[in-house]
Amino acid sequence: MTHVPRARASFALSPQERRGVYRAIYGRRDVRAQFLSDPVPDRVLARLLRAAHHAPSVGFMQPWNFIVIRDRAARAAVREAFVRERDRAAQLYEEPRRSQFLELKLEGILEAPLNLCVTCDPERGGPHVLGRSAVRETDIYSTACAVQNLWLAARAEGVGVGWVSIVQPAELRAILGIPEPVLPLAYLCLGYVSEFKDTPDLARAGWRQRLPLGDLVFGDRWGAPDLRVRATLERAER
Amino acid sequence: MTHVPRARASFALSPQERRGVYRAIYGRRDVRAQFLSDPVPDRVLARLLRAAHHAPSVGFMQPWNFIVIRDRAARAAVREAFVRERDRAAQLYEEPRRSQFLELKLEGILEAPLNLCVTCDPERGGPHVLGRSAVRETDIYSTACAVQNLWLAARAEGVGVGWVSIVQPAELRAILGIPEPVLPLAYLCLGYVSEFKDTPDLARAGWRQRLPLGDLVFGDRWGAPDLRVRATLERAER
Repeated sequence: MTHVPRARASFALSPQERRGVYRAIYGRRDVRAQFLSDPVPDRVLARLLRAAHHAPSVGFMQPWNFIVIRDRAARAAVREAFVRERDRAAQLYEEPRRSQFLELKLEGILEAPLNLCVTCDPERGGPHVLGRSAVRETDIYSTACAVQNLWLAARAEGVGVGWVSIVQPAELRAILGIPEPVLPLAYLCLGYVSEFKDTPDLARAGWRQRLPLGDLVFGDRWGAPDLRVRATLERAER
Repeated sequence: MTHVPRARASFALSPQERRGVYRAIYGRRDVRAQFLSDPVPDRVLARLLRAAHHAPSVGFMQPWNFIVIRDRAARAAVREAFVRERDRAAQLYEEPRRSQFLELKLEGILEAPLNLCVTCDPERGGPHVLGRSAVRETDIYSTACAVQNLWLAARAEGVGVGWVSIVQPAELRAILGIPEPVLPLAYLCLGYVSEFKDTPDLARAGWRQRLPLGDLVFGDRWGAPDLRVRATLERAER
């Protein structure tokens, strides 16, 4: 008699719902070049923010805030800060990498109808947040999880998101009036898109490729290959 | 004639798929007390790892590794490290908070059939990772996004995940042989569950409640309420 554990599947989502989760995960792109100017309705934006707000957080700290930026002057200022940092970063590369870097489309700050800054307040919840005694940066981990929730909900809604990390936080602070010690963790561009590409921009541009997952998985100890997982991954790829 | 922008919904997932994304986001819990011992099949674990591997990463850096921990001795050692840190953290609270803290169930390291350490290698991709010039910690943000992908895929599969942050990273490094400068970012417990609770454990225990989202959303500048989003959120709650 085969033992079929009841528990296994009983809390799984339906096949269609589960497919939605994987489609959002695999179909999510870092969008830069495909933004349309169509406005994102407030009710859609509200759903994305609510998704972010339901991220896990250390000690239920919820350290995040969301600054919705519609103002064109503010966005133009962020765009200028981006250009300064991009030009500075370009100097780190030798040719031909430098020219390739400068030709990449890396943001859609002005094309996207909405920008969103997600911040992390390290003081929220007082000095002794549960679960934060050993690793103070867990507030940052929580806020990044909130960004990912928003990103996946956006993909489900057909809204593209691009994360602009090529900006000095001090410039964002000045432009958006963010006080110390609050950290502007993510600066995002949001909008409907003409297309979601099948593969990441940097892979298509030949900048860097996806790593083989099996090489990244260890069993019980760093450096020891997990042969079971590796075999399963290889079977799935055949 | 009403203008219906074609772009708006054309890349949205189907209603059922979209509902799956939101169900995973809202139904995800930090599981500690409800783990069952039923094994998680390798093919399910492989799907979760693949979901994590499809997270966004700065410069397509993919700084993560995944250590799957089945070995009971290693898990027992992590459990001991947890107890040491928990007892240390308890001293930060005054009574009655201290007793309440010590009574909380905060991990399922030995009950869950699988543990998983997600690490972040800050040196992957070389010294000048695209998008990392202004904010070096973007590798950490990327790895946290990978954890959230895995967490949502797990919820879709009916697998519970609990994040144990009450452990000193140096102890994890020693137990799992993780070399410097690789960071053990998340230590997770995974397994099927007897139940996904409706609300977070810390809310149910009266430790801390969910914050009103409207208070966390600003418009164009820190501190300026976003009246449009706030009104939309309030309408949705009525």
